Amino acid sequence: MPKSEDSALPAWRHRLYEIVFEAETPAGRAFDITLLGVILASVAVVLAESVPELRAVHGELFHAIEWGFTALFTVEYLLRLLAVRRPLAWARSFFGVIDLLAVLPTWLALVLPGAQTLLVLRALRLLRIFRIFKLAAFLSEANLLLAALVASRRKIFVFLGTVLLLVLVLGSLIYLVEGEAAGFVSIPRSMYWAIVTLTTVGYGDLAPQSGLGRFVASIVMLLGYSILAVPTGIFTGELLAAARRRGISTQACPSCGAEGHDLDARHCKFCGAKL
Amino acid sequence: MPKSEDSALPAWRHRLYEIVFEAETPAGRAFDITLLGVILASVAVVLAESVPELRAVHGELFHAIEWGFTALFTVEYLLRLLAVRRPLAWARSFFGVIDLLAVLPTWLALVLPGAQTLLVLRALRLLRIFRIFKLAAFLSEANLLLAALVASRRKIFVFLGTVLLLVLVLGSLIYLVEGEAAGFVSIPRSMYWAIVTLTTVGYGDLAPQSGLGRFVASIVMLLGYSILAVPTGIFTGELLAAARRRGISTQACPSCGAEGHDLDARHCKFCGAKL
Amino acid sequence: MPKSEDSALPAWRHRLYEIVFEAETPAGRAFDITLLGVILASVAVVLAESVPELRAVHGELFHAIEWGFTALFTVEYLLRLLAVRRPLAWARSFFGVIDLLAVLPTWLALVLPGAQTLLVLRALRLLRIFRIFKLAAFLSEANLLLAALVASRRKIFVFLGTVLLLVLVLGSLIYLVEGEAAGFVSIPRSMYWAIVTLTTVGYGDLAPQSGLGRFVASIVMLLGYSILAVPTGIFTGELLAAARRRGISTQACPSCGAEGHDLDARHCKFCGAKL
Amino acid sequence: MPKSEDSALPAWRHRLYEIVFEAETPAGRAFDITLLGVILASVAVVLAESVPELRAVHGELFHAIEWGFTALFTVEYLLRLLAVRRPLAWARSFFGVIDLLAVLPTWLALVLPGAQTLLVLRALRLLRIFRIFKLAAFLSEANLLLAALVASRRKIFVFLGTVLLLVLVLGSLIYLVEGEAAGFVSIPRSMYWAIVTLTTVGYGDLAPQSGLGRFVASIVMLLGYSILAVPTGIFTGELLAAARRRGISTQACPSCGAEGHDLDARHCKFCGAKL
Repeated sequence: MPKSEDSALPAWRHRLYEIVFEAETPAGRAFDITLLGVILASVAVVLAESVPELRAVHGELFHAIEWGFTALFTVEYLLRLLAVRRPLAWARSFFGVIDLLAVLPTWLALVLPGAQTLLVLRALRLLRIFRIFKLAAFLSEANLLLAALVASRRKIFVFLGTVLLLVLVLGSLIYLVEGEAAGFVSIPRSMYWAIVTLTTVGYGDLAPQSGLGRFVASIVMLLGYSILAVPTGIFTGELLAAARRRGISTQACPSCGAEGHDLDARHCKFCGAKL
Repeated sequence: MPKSEDSALPAWRHRLYEIVFEAETPAGRAFDITLLGVILASVAVVLAESVPELRAVHGELFHAIEWGFTALFTVEYLLRLLAVRRPLAWARSFFGVIDLLAVLPTWLALVLPGAQTLLVLRALRLLRIFRIFKLAAFLSEANLLLAALVASRRKIFVFLGTVLLLVLVLGSLIYLVEGEAAGFVSIPRSMYWAIVTLTTVGYGDLAPQSGLGRFVASIVMLLGYSILAVPTGIFTGELLAAARRRGISTQACPSCGAEGHDLDARHCKFCGAKL
Repeated sequence: MPKSEDSALPAWRHRLYEIVFEAETPAGRAFDITLLGVILASVAVVLAESVPELRAVHGELFHAIEWGFTALFTVEYLLRLLAVRRPLAWARSFFGVIDLLAVLPTWLALVLPGAQTLLVLRALRLLRIFRIFKLAAFLSEANLLLAALVASRRKIFVFLGTVLLLVLVLGSLIYLVEGEAAGFVSIPRSMYWAIVTLTTVGYGDLAPQSGLGRFVASIVMLLGYSILAVPTGIFTGELLAAARRRGISTQACPSCGAEGHDLDARHCKFCGAKL
Repeated sequence: MPKSEDSALPAWRHRLYEIVFEAETPAGRAFDITLLGVILASVAVVLAESVPELRAVHGELFHAIEWGFTALFTVEYLLRLLAVRRPLAWARSFFGVIDLLAVLPTWLALVLPGAQTLLVLRALRLLRIFRIFKLAAFLSEANLLLAALVASRRKIFVFLGTVLLLVLVLGSLIYLVEGEAAGFVSIPRSMYWAIVTLTTVGYGDLAPQSGLGRFVASIVMLLGYSILAVPTGIFTGELLAAARRRGISTQACPSCGAEGHDLDARHCKFCGAKL
């Protein structure tokens, strides 16, 4: 989040910045909590509008409320542009783009009318739910989990690569064994079945019909059941490693300044000086 | 569990308290084990009564047995009120409310008769199964697991929040991709599908029909399969941390200052000085 | 496994014991490996006979083979009775009973003929697959996993108890919410649904039809998805604890004889003597 | 990967080796990355050709492209034979066989024409996807996960053996309880159901119909849900053990003999002596 480093900014813009961007000041906190409620309400309206029964009865009302929220969020977007020191930099940041996406669909509907675009319009409108991602800003603990995920990202990438290779091979195998009669009409469709089975989801919309097919499916299931251990093991190990890193003393060696000593170390492990 | 702190209580009430509330005295233990059996039997009758075939044949019998159990539990409830030092405080405690909920439905059926309320009555009667929660009192080991769950509650909350955000985004995505023709009639319905798929339950009552929909579904499944590692990692880490806390003394050696001694250690394991 | 403690046994019975019971001597090893193959073959025949298409064609052959295996295993059972020092004690041991169950069904079919008992006969015959449990004797590593499971048995019991309570409450809830129209005809049936959903199996033979039912189902799924972490955490912790116990030195204190010292301990942690 | 140990090789073959086999030189790296793209493209064509709609329109084009890729890979295979010092040894190595399997199916289609073999031909053609396994060479981190899997292979073998025994017993049990009317027509088919249920896949193509069958199924599900903890615990433990082995030096302090020093320690952390 950008910080206003310059005291030469007009006082009212500094104050606006404090309200709109800061979360620690009373005014900023009140603004953020209110905004959170409004975002949740606007998401609820988007969800409700998608239900045919509700749309048939309250369609007009939803339309009006949606325009109200759009107006509100547009004003908020402009205030943010005004408050921030470098508006262009903010507009291109992650939250700047998210905030724009939250208001754009409704406005675009004005410029691009027409029957055939209405469906696309609805699609764009749905992007407004991304607005809710702001919630994450309130949850600082998420960073810890995220750090563990980031630390294990390469191992998880290898794991997912292996899973995709397995899906390719096992999907082709079931395609050969079962064939089109059982619904395995193509390799991509069979790969979809392999993912459904390997991840133990098991819709049942595609299921092997022959004895050999059931045998192959059994192997896929046992594989999926067993290798589920791999991401769990990776993440657990990474989380424990993070905890162990925190178990290391923060004390620096008075002689050489090295850090990273065990909590029970009495001598610097690099220069031998007493800690 | 409240304790009778006052010896000025009449002897019979003290004795009653020992039987009804205490689990360590022979009489209290016998009472608790008998109560456990009666609770299980009454739950069994509630289950049996809900089966149409059994209700058609033994409906009258079930009705009579239910009244018997209700009478028994009502007497027990009154005895508890009598035995405890501060009846009102106990009645508002967790187990006091549970005990009341176990007898109320059958009695309410007398005051509020009528065809249309019979269904609601049945609903209230079902709350009697909460009575079984008393069983938990017998299982002290549950506290350990509960402690680990409580310690990781914030991380689990963040995880569930992230999962719900994913469900919102992925549900909207499949709603756009598949649409009403494939059964994804609204965003809430599509979010239900996303939960079914992400948790690897996979009923199959809703399944993508188009190639693009299957591609989105595959991503949802692989996500659900991978992030299952997160709650497992959190809980495992918390359980290990709890074990470590219990396993290592915080006492430092008075001679050499070394820490990390086992709880049963009487001498410093580094210099041999008495701890 | 019983050991022949008495050298007064006739030489041929001692030799027979070595062949039939011992697995370390060349003859005993050859016998065990042959037996393993025969057991697998007999299980394969039981499986093949249950397939209607194969039974229609090869029914007679299967019948003959089955009698052959029964004769073989009967002879083996008698040899074991002959070889062992205390036949009655062995016959009542776990493997003695398993071995008897492996031959009894076919013999019982002779004594108890008749149309209506034929189905029961087939049921008893299926018990012959228990014979395969002997395989476990070959896998010593199984003991390690078993030990970890036994160590965590109380925690797993508490976990399963909690899961069953959840199943009772959630099953009753969905029974109330969905009712008989959606297939939730009784509480036991609804509890079956709760187990199917909580364990993330998700057959789809029972699925909620109303919006409120889908909401309850979503909570059940997220619960099942999250608490899967609990048995995993318990077992992982127990396995690591077992590994740590093994990480403890087996050296006894020369002064006080106490054991259980850390590998890096230089002094007995109980008496302070140098190790 | 074979290494050219002999400098007596002609310069052009040495250069060819560097390009075709080495991945560190600029030319070799460019070759490998290009090859990777070509392999992915050829796999994409195999997938696309299996889709009936695409094959109907672009069948001829796919045929031509496939021949192009086959020609390319054949030239590459011959170049590898030429470049390597001991062609026969390489041809029999894992990657040599994979490379041959990638080109053989298309060529075999020329020698073995005929309507009835066309299906088999398509089957052989599918083996070309094994070519993608080369990708693994780029992912060195895979080795770590593989090592942990290899270290826990015996425990996983025991686990899978136990699961298969459970499947045999539980499958036979449901076969007896449900019988052919509910679709459990044979023990192998019932074992397939047991695997589907135990691994929590749950297609729903086979589901118990009777109350007793649902009870057995519930036990299978709870078993599958609980023992999922076993492979996860095994793999997590193995991964942590590997991390510990890598993290701690086996070097003892020459002065005080203390062990357990970090790999980057230069002084004993207990007495400060130089290691």
